[in-house]
Formats: sequence, structure tokens, C-alpha cells
Amino acid sequence: MTGHTAGPEIERLIQLLARLPGLGPRSARRAALHLIKKKDQLMTPLAAAVADAVDKVTVCSRCGNVDTVDPCTICADPRRDPATIVVVEDVADLWALERANATNGTYHVLGGTLSPLDGVGPDDLNIASLIDRATAATGSGQPAELVLAVNATVEGQTTAHYITDQLTGLDVKVTRLAHGVPVGGELDYLDEGTLTAAMRQRGEF
Amino acid sequence: MTGHTAGPEIERLIQLLARLPGLGPRSARRAALHLIKKKDQLMTPLAAAVADAVDKVTVCSRCGNVDTVDPCTICADPRRDPATIVVVEDVADLWALERANATNGTYHVLGGTLSPLDGVGPDDLNIASLIDRATAATGSGQPAELVLAVNATVEGQTTAHYITDQLTGLDVKVTRLAHGVPVGGELDYLDEGTLTAAMRQRGEF
Repeated sequence: MTGHTAGPEIERLIQLLARLPGLGPRSARRAALHLIKKKDQLMTPLAAAVADAVDKVTVCSRCGNVDTVDPCTICADPRRDPATIVVVEDVADLWALERANATNGTYHVLGGTLSPLDGVGPDDLNIASLIDRATAATGSGQPAELVLAVNATVEGQTTAHYITDQLTGLDVKVTRLAHGVPVGGELDYLDEGTLTAAMRQRGEF
Repeated sequence: MTGHTAGPEIERLIQLLARLPGLGPRSARRAALHLIKKKDQLMTPLAAAVADAVDKVTVCSRCGNVDTVDPCTICADPRRDPATIVVVEDVADLWALERANATNGTYHVLGGTLSPLDGVGPDDLNIASLIDRATAATGSGQPAELVLAVNATVEGQTTAHYITDQLTGLDVKVTRLAHGVPVGGELDYLDEGTLTAAMRQRGEF
């Protein structure tokens, strides 16, 4: 990748960096050079940080979140409401909702969406464990709520419908995120589906 | 960065990844998640690769290239012509020329360009060692050539002029890269300076 003139260790570093999302071959080379130039300030700490993460990172056996403890910090937090389960496709979505402080509920990470064409069926996602959690939550006496915070894509909505079907007969309130105009968004740039949804779900000012 | 709900090791990894060029906070989070998901295939090898690079990477004491040996693979290669010294600003430029197999000469990495406004003077660049090498090359009996492969920017050209001044009195041929139309480039998209240079330096078909 460098023209085979740098050492094999540098080549290997570039190859691995190029496999990170968002980094192509060119930016992987730039990143490797940057690391080499900032050896003490960046490369050495990064080596330690990646090794640390390899050691410590684990998946929460309850909700599928990644953390360094199991159950994860959110599941273990007594201030979080275990009867409100926010269902997300991916940990990145969980992180986004946490940054927004959008809920004091707990999460359930599906690990993807149903996609028959790609061979992703219900057994490939954390759906069975979600149904178990929902069933347990209904038995606790508290009203349970499942917030389907999946992406507004065809796959996301298909998955949402499948989950809703599985919950038939259970006393669980199933909700989903509102569609509407993004805060700070300009109407002129929004698609018609969003505008129609925002109009239909309009609220009092 | 994740909303302080993931472990400190994950936060630290994201923070360090965000300091790589080309990765902002958002793509650093995506990269960290990708690493976590591909723990065995990617995160563990990356930890080893970065640690290896920390151990092995060194700067060539002769030309300023980065490699895992000193002198670097290029300087040590008997097939490379030590009397042709290709002067580049940065190791990234050296790598680019090597990928193109553009020369069988050796290199000299300046480590930047003269920039009085940013406080970068001749002593901050590897210019003295370049003059030493040029002087040594003229004494070898072979005709020596210094190819100024610096960027076609004001700073690059200023640096090229400074180096040329320092070589006064030495029997060194000083050349620079040709300006012209990039291979595969469309004239319509090129700036006027490039077109004028390409016309002036036109060759026989």
C-alpha cells in the first residue's frame, strides 16, 4: 500500500486501519503516518486503549448493549425504568438516544433488522430475548411499554411489525418514535412523507 | 461521547480514534463500534499492529523516511541511485511517488515547507542534511541531481527557491516536477495556470 518500501509492521497497520468504516486506503495511510508522527502522544496511548478494550469490552446479556460490565451500566442503573424498553437496531442508535437524554427507560439492541433477501431472519436478531423481557415486564404489575425506536426504513418498519405480531396477547403498550420535522430543519428541504407525517401528527402550540 | 453510559475504556478508545485525520467524533464512534463487533477479526489484530508499530517504527537518519529499519529500505537498496535525490515535503509524498514507481533515485523528506508566518524556518526542516548529502554526492564523481518534488503551492515553491539558493556553487543539477494535465484529466476542469504550463511545456507527439 505504501509501495512496499516501508516495513511490514507499517503495511499491516495501514491494512487494518483501512478496514475501519470511514477510512479508505488513502485516509488509512494518512492516519498511519499521523500515528507515526505522534508516536508518544497518540500511537502509544492508542495501542494501550485498543488492548484495554479487547480485554474489557463485553455484550450485556440482558439488552445487547456493549459495555465493560455485564449487565451494562444502563441495565444496572436503578434510576432507569425496566418497564420501558426502547428497542433499537444497533448500539450506535442507543448511543445517539443516550447523548440526547431521550429516555430514562432501558434498551434492547436487536442487532440489525429483518431482511429475508440478505438471509436475516428472526433467529438472527435478539427478538426472542425481547419477547421474554416484555413478558417478564408485564408480570411485574407495572404497565410495560415497548418503544420501537427502529429506523424509518422499510427493513426497520418490517421488523417493527414482526415484533408487534409476536407480542399479541401480551399486555404491553407498543409505541414508536414520532415522525416529523427535525429541530432546526427547513421545510423546503424535507421529503413529502416527512411533511405529511408532521402535518398529520401536528400538536397544539 | 457515547453519553457516558459505556465503560471508560470504550470512551477512551473513541477519544483517541477521533484524533486520527479523517475521523470526526461521529465516525470515531462508528469505528469503535465496528472494532467491538469485529473483536477477533479486527480489534485484536489492530491492538497488536499498533503495539508492533510503536516498537519498530523509526525515522531514517539519512533521508527522513519512516521505516522499521535505519537506514530505510530505499536508502539501503543498492539498485537505487544515491546521486539522484528526490526532495519531498512529507513521507506521504514519498509513498505516493513509490506507488507510482516514479523514480529509482533516493529521497529526502523535508518534514514540511518554509512558512515564516507559522514560525517554520530553515532550521525546522531537514535542509542542512540535504545540503550535506548534495555536497557528498557531487564529490562522488557521478553527476548529482536534486529533483524538487515539492507541492505546487506558494510554500512549496518558496522552499524550493530557498534550497536552490543554498546550493549555489555546488555542481548539482536541480530539477523540478513538470506541470501539466493530469493523466485522464479533462481540460475543461483544469485551472488556467495548469493549462498555461501544459501548453508552454508541450512536447512532440
